[in-house]
Amino acid sequence: MSTTLRSACPIASALDLLGDRWTLVVLRDVLLARKRSFSELAAPEGIASNILSDRLNRLVDAGIVTREPDPDDGRRRIVLPTARGLELVPILLDLHLWGTRHTAGTAKPQLAEWVARDREAAIASFLP
Amino acid sequence: MSTTLRSACPIASALDLLGDRWTLVVLRDVLLARKRSFSELAAPEGIASNILSDRLNRLVDAGIVTREPDPDDGRRRIVLPTARGLELVPILLDLHLWGTRHTAGTAKPQLAEWVARDREAAIASFLP
Repeated sequence: MSTTLRSACPIASALDLLGDRWTLVVLRDVLLARKRSFSELAAPEGIASNILSDRLNRLVDAGIVTREPDPDDGRRRIVLPTARGLELVPILLDLHLWGTRHTAGTAKPQLAEWVARDREAAIASFLP
Repeated sequence: MSTTLRSACPIASALDLLGDRWTLVVLRDVLLARKRSFSELAAPEGIASNILSDRLNRLVDAGIVTREPDPDDGRRRIVLPTARGLELVPILLDLHLWGTRHTAGTAKPQLAEWVARDREAAIASFLP
């Protein structure tokens, strides 16, 4: 995961940032599950905490999430999506639909049905 | 890139297969650029041939592409997308749009404009 772009291709450039085993799983938890704290973001899949830290730092640097003081406890910090990050919601929902149709992943089938039936409404439900 | 699923999440399961630096770049070339031969698929980004072989084998195993005899030269084989693979076209186009908006990747801006304006038509243009 170099930060140097491989080419002028926007797909390759997006994958320079997002193309690994964990980044979009972390963003799933931020964008779809609305998890906010570091401990919540230690995904059910068991991401190592050093990898989680690294990916969050990269996502902050790329302007996809921000770290802000927790309004409930100013000593703690939470992760919030930016507008740029929220534009990844459609990609995550499309991956959810594709994964439901073509892999053994079976969680939240109603969400996949909703994306297939009315993608725009499903996307809007995850936006502020 | 284990082939064991991490969880029941369809997003994580899709990324168990697609979540790396190269797989979706190879699929970009198969699905959007309609490249067919191994030599064509040695992407402009310079994928190592052993990585390309590995990714193509994984994609064949997952039923996303098939290898068929080249109709122009039966001694050679070409790579063709399956129906399951063609269902990744929307995800690639969404990544293209996101990358155009939010990374330094600038190739094919007209395609991003088309996806933003009429996503369904843009998707259909890449289907058989």
